[in-house]
Amino acid sequence: MNTIGHIFRLTTFGESHGTAIGGVIDGCPSQFKLDFDFIDSELRRRKTAQSTTSSQRSEPDKIEWLSGLLDGVTLGTPIAFMVRNEDCKPEDYEALKDVYRPSHADFTYEQKYGIRDWRGGGRASARTTLPIVVAGAIAKQILIEKDIFVRAETVFMGDAEQARKEGDTVGGIAECRIMGVPAGLGEPMFGKFSAELAHAMFSLPAVKGFEIGDGFALAQMKGSEANDTNINKDGRITTLTNHSGGIQGGITNGNDVVFRVAFKPIPSIAKSQQTVNRAGEPCEISIGGRHDVCALPRALVLVEALAAMVTFDQLLRSQSMV
Amino acid sequence: MNTIGHIFRLTTFGESHGTAIGGVIDGCPSQFKLDFDFIDSELRRRKTAQSTTSSQRSEPDKIEWLSGLLDGVTLGTPIAFMVRNEDCKPEDYEALKDVYRPSHADFTYEQKYGIRDWRGGGRASARTTLPIVVAGAIAKQILIEKDIFVRAETVFMGDAEQARKEGDTVGGIAECRIMGVPAGLGEPMFGKFSAELAHAMFSLPAVKGFEIGDGFALAQMKGSEANDTNINKDGRITTLTNHSGGIQGGITNGNDVVFRVAFKPIPSIAKSQQTVNRAGEPCEISIGGRHDVCALPRALVLVEALAAMVTFDQLLRSQSMV
Amino acid sequence: MNTIGHIFRLTTFGESHGTAIGGVIDGCPSQFKLDFDFIDSELRRRKTAQSTTSSQRSEPDKIEWLSGLLDGVTLGTPIAFMVRNEDCKPEDYEALKDVYRPSHADFTYEQKYGIRDWRGGGRASARTTLPIVVAGAIAKQILIEKDIFVRAETVFMGDAEQARKEGDTVGGIAECRIMGVPAGLGEPMFGKFSAELAHAMFSLPAVKGFEIGDGFALAQMKGSEANDTNINKDGRITTLTNHSGGIQGGITNGNDVVFRVAFKPIPSIAKSQQTVNRAGEPCEISIGGRHDVCALPRALVLVEALAAMVTFDQLLRSQSMV
Amino acid sequence: MNTIGHIFRLTTFGESHGTAIGGVIDGCPSQFKLDFDFIDSELRRRKTAQSTTSSQRSEPDKIEWLSGLLDGVTLGTPIAFMVRNEDCKPEDYEALKDVYRPSHADFTYEQKYGIRDWRGGGRASARTTLPIVVAGAIAKQILIEKDIFVRAETVFMGDAEQARKEGDTVGGIAECRIMGVPAGLGEPMFGKFSAELAHAMFSLPAVKGFEIGDGFALAQMKGSEANDTNINKDGRITTLTNHSGGIQGGITNGNDVVFRVAFKPIPSIAKSQQTVNRAGEPCEISIGGRHDVCALPRALVLVEALAAMVTFDQLLRSQSMV
Repeated sequence: MNTIGHIFRLTTFGESHGTAIGGVIDGCPSQFKLDFDFIDSELRRRKTAQSTTSSQRSEPDKIEWLSGLLDGVTLGTPIAFMVRNEDCKPEDYEALKDVYRPSHADFTYEQKYGIRDWRGGGRASARTTLPIVVAGAIAKQILIEKDIFVRAETVFMGDAEQARKEGDTVGGIAECRIMGVPAGLGEPMFGKFSAELAHAMFSLPAVKGFEIGDGFALAQMKGSEANDTNINKDGRITTLTNHSGGIQGGITNGNDVVFRVAFKPIPSIAKSQQTVNRAGEPCEISIGGRHDVCALPRALVLVEALAAMVTFDQLLRSQSMV
Repeated sequence: MNTIGHIFRLTTFGESHGTAIGGVIDGCPSQFKLDFDFIDSELRRRKTAQSTTSSQRSEPDKIEWLSGLLDGVTLGTPIAFMVRNEDCKPEDYEALKDVYRPSHADFTYEQKYGIRDWRGGGRASARTTLPIVVAGAIAKQILIEKDIFVRAETVFMGDAEQARKEGDTVGGIAECRIMGVPAGLGEPMFGKFSAELAHAMFSLPAVKGFEIGDGFALAQMKGSEANDTNINKDGRITTLTNHSGGIQGGITNGNDVVFRVAFKPIPSIAKSQQTVNRAGEPCEISIGGRHDVCALPRALVLVEALAAMVTFDQLLRSQSMV
Repeated sequence: MNTIGHIFRLTTFGESHGTAIGGVIDGCPSQFKLDFDFIDSELRRRKTAQSTTSSQRSEPDKIEWLSGLLDGVTLGTPIAFMVRNEDCKPEDYEALKDVYRPSHADFTYEQKYGIRDWRGGGRASARTTLPIVVAGAIAKQILIEKDIFVRAETVFMGDAEQARKEGDTVGGIAECRIMGVPAGLGEPMFGKFSAELAHAMFSLPAVKGFEIGDGFALAQMKGSEANDTNINKDGRITTLTNHSGGIQGGITNGNDVVFRVAFKPIPSIAKSQQTVNRAGEPCEISIGGRHDVCALPRALVLVEALAAMVTFDQLLRSQSMV
Repeated sequence: MNTIGHIFRLTTFGESHGTAIGGVIDGCPSQFKLDFDFIDSELRRRKTAQSTTSSQRSEPDKIEWLSGLLDGVTLGTPIAFMVRNEDCKPEDYEALKDVYRPSHADFTYEQKYGIRDWRGGGRASARTTLPIVVAGAIAKQILIEKDIFVRAETVFMGDAEQARKEGDTVGGIAECRIMGVPAGLGEPMFGKFSAELAHAMFSLPAVKGFEIGDGFALAQMKGSEANDTNINKDGRITTLTNHSGGIQGGITNGNDVVFRVAFKPIPSIAKSQQTVNRAGEPCEISIGGRHDVCALPRALVLVEALAAMVTFDQLLRSQSMV
């Protein structure tokens, strides 16, 4: 429910304007010296208030490490951490308490739970992705020692500057590449490497599409165009092209794993919108607060983090099968 | 690994040319009288040898029910079933024993397991999806009693007739609609309704893309265009448009859930291709056997089956939270 | 629900007088050549009709292997197997259809499911433990290659011959020893080696007690008596005594793991008993059928099988953490 | 690994002398107003420094609630909480850094992880059971609203006062009764109510035995003595005796669930003991620090807490099956 992973598992907790946001990482191997500077630098990539596309909320995002470490070295026991919510302005949201913001989770949370934390989006806020960055940074650090690298970039983004002026927002597409993944990772039936990546990416707010390799474009190709020719390159079997995105039959083939993630525009817009309140009465809404114009710049580190977590988890699982 | 679902769970087993293909459904509520005719009719939708786009392998696909039923009524205990593999022609594959077919799972399975059942693709064969149809049919039957309906159709397919003549194959895109889903299904963080659908769809062979609602097109929209306006329709809160595909914050909002799945062309083509064998030596390959020209016609029932299983599982989970 | 294990996982299915009893083993490492003779010999240990303490039901218990093997070698994919129920005599049970046998699961199954397979105890029959023997035999075979051995024996049994004459049954206690377990297996908090053994043993019918090491007797000792003194024996750190049964803090210490399991008398007795039927009316019952006088002789192989499965599963898990 | 439960799940974290001890409760239904006074009173039952049998460590044990609540009402999202470790005296343990205390987890943790937090027992300390009390108190509170009550008492304890004088410790036996449990809870095969209770109890430090109903004594009875006669009592089907401890076939029958747990003497004794250090050299040890003479008085609330958690979890699971 709030846990991802099988061996390397992250459980997250926290609401946007509650006491704290945090997580518990279970299954991290022991005896790794964590690189806290790296973790902080990853958090800064996710942080707000850094550019023209991001919101103005300024949290120090100072991690407090609660357990699982001795002198910065992993003990093998659960690594718990948290960040306090300090720059909360629930009053920004007071007016929205009884209004359902269009294309937000306000209505759906209420339908599910019969109650919702209306302060800043509560559990549905993008702020709750912070623990993913921390767990992803730890996974990345260990993967790098194994020469596995994860890197995401924006391959499409709407016109953000124009949208900001109009009180509007834009969507975009991120592409991520996992380099150095050994062949043979992924479960054959219901835990395919691609399936777990898709699941992970759809855990991010605003994600509405996922494709691997040439993805949707493959639907337009013929088999003779889409197939990746197997070749022998300096004694190593690989493929001439990588239409498959590094995955065949759900299992990595040693090529780069390449995938793309589509983000819808952030639904919080300053422009006036029609909606209804909890009583079902029509009303007009203009969402002030501090919001990004596009999710992409901040989401890249999240895409990488989840990709690293899935890869590391699959790597650990593969070790249990020999 | 070979199990999908949390409450309503399917574990599958079987290789294409092994003794049998089958599954165990655990967590199916008791006291439902199964509609075996419906299950058979669903299996026929998946069956080969039915049209010009499908392969010529002709399996009777006669289900043998092994457990979990008394006079056709579910006992609440595991429902096991299997179908024997009768029309096997492993000799079709003998020539492929030591050759890696391009864009198949031959190489990746060998990398993962150090061994592979080369007969007809083994565990990676599309034939192993048969148990999904059975479990999906049971889920569908129970959902229908709750006025929830699932329906998939082909919204794009390459030119199959031309491809067949050329010894080639084509890809396509399926669109699926889940109607009547109550609002409030889906977990907020790592078990989002959308994430579980994505995971399920990527479990199907040849799937390379998944999008929900307007999906990738949303990346090109502005927030003011993408947002679904909340309205009060005859006393029920719903939305004017459905760009979100029925899911907001990972949770259903009561609208139809709509998603699309991209299938790459089937990689088994009669056309001659370059590849390498296990020794890494280059060789030429022309894949005879009995193969489809396009996965789509047979995959529709699989898309529906998995959608029904995810929906039913989420429905059962929601009942445990009150 | 019907699955045990984390990496090496067994899902079982089947009712006593249904079509078949069987299981699916997922997570068994690839490239092991199964010793079918050994598996058969283990099944014979569980088989009925072998001695004066056992029932007269005679099933051939011929395993049919359905998947996961190529020429008897594990593929890494799910190993499914089944045994048909051939020597069924449901008419023995017809009279019991509407009667709740004392200390059986008749009443509780009906309370849980609203329906029950009354033929021979259905899912609650001891016959449903057969798949455990198969999975246990596979785990044992692989453990033996790693010099880990599991052996159970009866350390107490009531007077079976006298009980048989009286139409009565007796209970008993089994002791099991796992030899050669490496130190360091077991999870520290909720997956302790001892906790998983306890869970596994309580999955067997008629089990009502479990203790590890000196168990309940430890409650009567002082710390100075109960503690196992650490010693250096030929360069290896071990303990002088083994009051702890090879487990400290839930984790194996390299000593033999020793535990005991208490079985209540089999509740099916020929002697006349008072009970009630489904309508709540009092009635008298004398259970004929084919039943054992004591569970112990046949249960030893089950105790060993589950111990082997837990040990192998923990061993595989430990490999994922480095 | 550090998580217990299926629907109502607790993940714990923390080492005895680390920053904090805490937990994350996932799957708690929404809209319950927590009774913080009750939780505090339960924590006091577990607290040290309260009697002659307990240690002198005095932690304020002030819970900080981190998430999942709005004005004290559950949101349905993860409830995270922690207690800081304030009264730490690692210097008490400095001398033990390189010594393996007899019958402690020092040696086994090092074998498992290659590293261990030597300060106060680290993750193996009884202090890490604190989150169990919190989760148990929440489960209890909700169960009480459903007229289900859990109560444990000491039924045997060694001579504590004499042991304290001798620098020794004693063991004991707790008996726990769950009253008001509806019939029909428990999974039939591998999640039996009894099996899950056993698993939960063996998660507690120092537990070495578990029995349900008449337990080990049943091994000495005949079937005719051990069977619980079914009767009709005022229109309700129940049993005349309760040798089975409220569970038949792994499923509750509506009677009180009764079980006993054996605790070994606490291994930390002031009396001098022989042991070895990490280098394998023999040495003498006298464990000062602040330790209990008997685990029982403080463990009762833990036994109740885990019993409540298992019961509540099974109750929630049963709701998903209709």
